[in-house]
Amino acid sequence: MKKNHTFLLIMLSAVILFSAFSGWQDPEQVPYPTGYRSWTHVKSKVALSNNPANKSASTYHHIYANALALEGYKTGKFPKGSVIVADFIAAVDSSSALFEGQRKYIDVMIRNTEQYASTGGWGCEEFEKDSKTARKVNLVNAQACFNCHKPQAANEFVFSKYRE
Amino acid sequence: MKKNHTFLLIMLSAVILFSAFSGWQDPEQVPYPTGYRSWTHVKSKVALSNNPANKSASTYHHIYANALALEGYKTGKFPKGSVIVADFIAAVDSSSALFEGQRKYIDVMIRNTEQYASTGGWGCEEFEKDSKTARKVNLVNAQACFNCHKPQAANEFVFSKYRE
Repeated sequence: MKKNHTFLLIMLSAVILFSAFSGWQDPEQVPYPTGYRSWTHVKSKVALSNNPANKSASTYHHIYANALALEGYKTGKFPKGSVIVADFIAAVDSSSALFEGQRKYIDVMIRNTEQYASTGGWGCEEFEKDSKTARKVNLVNAQACFNCHKPQAANEFVFSKYRE
Repeated sequence: MKKNHTFLLIMLSAVILFSAFSGWQDPEQVPYPTGYRSWTHVKSKVALSNNPANKSASTYHHIYANALALEGYKTGKFPKGSVIVADFIAAVDSSSALFEGQRKYIDVMIRNTEQYASTGGWGCEEFEKDSKTARKVNLVNAQACFNCHKPQAANEFVFSKYRE
């Protein structure tokens, strides 16, 4: 038992030393995109419920871009610090119109080719409802975001286009 | 015939003199809201086609506010110079989603209680499609805008609320 304990301590020290000398570190958590509601509205779509009798299960997808990301939409090259937010809001069917209901979640992409080299140069995160802290991706699941965005390689992995 | 002509000239001169001395003048044309696509996106709705088989006749209503109007949404008092734009975009039904199509028109409200005293302190205009000059209201029809907005007197005649 004592031997195992010593072995673990040695291994742990080795990992810490390796990390310190190699300069290796976790990529940073994607920060909550404070103030995104005042960024430029890129475009919208509504994903309709598959059940025509239940249009209230439909969802607004509003895309917002900070100033750097807006430059990216216009030039095709997203500079470091570009942030894109997809805001998913319930679409509530009433009186022949779809109104905005509660927020379901937001998806965030942040451009940093060094930090997020393994996921196309984009960090990604999903924040639940109106929370600024309840994360669904948490770095470990970032590959899942990237897998879906891979076909958009020609557009630096961005699906949306700016609607004039 | 000559007499009628003279009479008309006298009447016209009287009108011009009255206008000049009374200081009376037309309110200004509502300017095109240059740059509104980068203003804050207040909220959206989709007006659905009455014909369920023709969802492509549906229309996005996106509301945008300049910085002054955003202050108005938050305080309930719209300062002079507040501008609100309603952007009407075709909602095109495809693959269980409503995508944005062509712009149909934009409606503009600008706050100036002196200029537009007879229409609740708001000037209004409608610009067709992507045009910055093709006007549908042209001052003479401003009362029609106001008639529809009158029930919103408690909200300074504004229908929309800011969606957080």
